[in-house]
Amino acid sequence: MRELPLLEQPDVQVCCAPLASEVLSEPDAQTLARQFAALADPVRLRLVSLLATAEDGAVCACDLVAPVGKSQPTVSHHLKVLVDAGLATSERRGRNIWYGVVPAALEALRGALATR
Amino acid sequence: MRELPLLEQPDVQVCCAPLASEVLSEPDAQTLARQFAALADPVRLRLVSLLATAEDGAVCACDLVAPVGKSQPTVSHHLKVLVDAGLATSERRGRNIWYGVVPAALEALRGALATR
Repeated sequence: MRELPLLEQPDVQVCCAPLASEVLSEPDAQTLARQFAALADPVRLRLVSLLATAEDGAVCACDLVAPVGKSQPTVSHHLKVLVDAGLATSERRGRNIWYGVVPAALEALRGALATR
Repeated sequence: MRELPLLEQPDVQVCCAPLASEVLSEPDAQTLARQFAALADPVRLRLVSLLATAEDGAVCACDLVAPVGKSQPTVSHHLKVLVDAGLATSERRGRNIWYGVVPAALEALRGALATR
């Protein structure tokens, strides 16, 4: 029995064909650039990796502050950027907010980088 | 017979284990963030896609200006960011500089995003 179930996963839109298969349209390039921008920060990458390696698939924001060594507001800001980019999802549980990675969103980015 | 051979590919260092396999170290997070930052721009993404879809594996900088609809100095700047991040490579041929994508570098980023 799990005390803390996995977070519900949002629907993920795959934005575009692999970069190597056809020339990216301008709107697709805008969408994709926003998602890569969410990954273009070392603190956010460490947060993604903390979420992605979490055994239960979800981590309380309160348990993310110490491992990244940043203040609580800084961590909250970075988590919001990840959620806004669709790379993480969150759920309020009592007084805390829990976060999980959205594997399908990371897979979609992987797809865009495919070279063959 | 090819008039324009493929560009020589640089060695590519794979920076880190997949984000979902272990918590990213701070130095690895710095390295990876720099590479994602190079992809966090719609013009650069379109350039990568133009390079990655080039039949000969290389494109003259002079042929990249029109498709992205930006000035030559802007295009040169973005190409330099891609080369500095190791995602593209370049070679001077006569009066022009030719650019190609570095597929192994894109593959390394794909590896970092692997979720299983």
